[in-house]
Amino acid sequence: MTFGILVFPNVEELDFVGPWEMVTMWQQVAGGPNCLVVAEHAAPISCAKGLSINPHFSFEECPALDYLLVPGGQGTRTEINNAKLLDFVAARGKACKAVLSVCTGSFVLHAAGLLEGKRATTHWGSLERLRALGSVEVVEERFVRDANVWSSAGVSAGIDLTLAFIAEVAGEEAAAKVQFASEYYPSDRRYGAFHNTHPSAPAYTRDA
Amino acid sequence: MTFGILVFPNVEELDFVGPWEMVTMWQQVAGGPNCLVVAEHAAPISCAKGLSINPHFSFEECPALDYLLVPGGQGTRTEINNAKLLDFVAARGKACKAVLSVCTGSFVLHAAGLLEGKRATTHWGSLERLRALGSVEVVEERFVRDANVWSSAGVSAGIDLTLAFIAEVAGEEAAAKVQFASEYYPSDRRYGAFHNTHPSAPAYTRDA
Repeated sequence: MTFGILVFPNVEELDFVGPWEMVTMWQQVAGGPNCLVVAEHAAPISCAKGLSINPHFSFEECPALDYLLVPGGQGTRTEINNAKLLDFVAARGKACKAVLSVCTGSFVLHAAGLLEGKRATTHWGSLERLRALGSVEVVEERFVRDANVWSSAGVSAGIDLTLAFIAEVAGEEAAAKVQFASEYYPSDRRYGAFHNTHPSAPAYTRDA
Repeated sequence: MTFGILVFPNVEELDFVGPWEMVTMWQQVAGGPNCLVVAEHAAPISCAKGLSINPHFSFEECPALDYLLVPGGQGTRTEINNAKLLDFVAARGKACKAVLSVCTGSFVLHAAGLLEGKRATTHWGSLERLRALGSVEVVEERFVRDANVWSSAGVSAGIDLTLAFIAEVAGEEAAAKVQFASEYYPSDRRYGAFHNTHPSAPAYTRDA
């Protein structure tokens, strides 16, 4: 089994490295799939915050994928107009058992026609922009699954998405092993009150 | 101000990309320091789980640093015997306002002489190994600060460490902006019960 993570110029770093860590840990401790990083070209990619990475495969060289994850970042605003990338996501996405997006990666899924009639989410700062596209039901959850399409809120939410995905595909015990190995027992500390008071704060971060 | 993140072969991916995301977001939304990735050589680094990255600077080319973070991973078992790397960490660490470690990065700080008499922590799987080194008081918290030395538990704990560090250095409002921008309101979901039942589970993950 192979889990592919798409990258592109100005992809947000944690959007894809969070899921990368969870999936590669799944491979190491619980028999999860191989994981690879694929980009249009197999040349260095400069991420949104300036980290430079080297994709494993170009679109042409990329092996068959069982799962495909599309992260977000400023680069998505360019990529939603990149026909080669959208063709790759549409073709590979349709052949996959599941597709996943993190943050504004959901705009790429939408542009590739994979969110038609689906429930999905994105970074809080882009919820209204996704709603305005129509033909997708935007929810304000940390992550959401609709059939074989999974999407998460912004940046760090890809970690929670991926653990839930692992639990669904491989069972609670596999997700437990990954959570323990990556010591993912995050603090519940809330700095300030933007999660309650900011007009764009998503429903799931607001205190009941 | 400049925040340096050390990398080396087989560095664990999320150990350094978690803090990288928090610090670069701090720069973007709240006037935080520049952030750079430094390695012994400015050649591609293959990380512990197979991600390939390109450091910004070699040791020789690295500008002055105000803060230095040392991530962990399997590679630390080699690097604690790398005199050039330990010299870099010792010299730069002493010149910095603060040094931070994630996961088994604390073994590198120890080998560089920066944990002498300090309270520190590491990945749950290495707590006893760190204790056995002596001359350091090992605590089982998500992260711990002792004067200008900050250290965290495993892998994902570097995110919590860095947010707390930002709150200390730049104030609650800065940390709040970074937390909101990176949408770091993680799920409190616990898969399975390793955090309670595993003999090596650290004190902070166990239910009261």
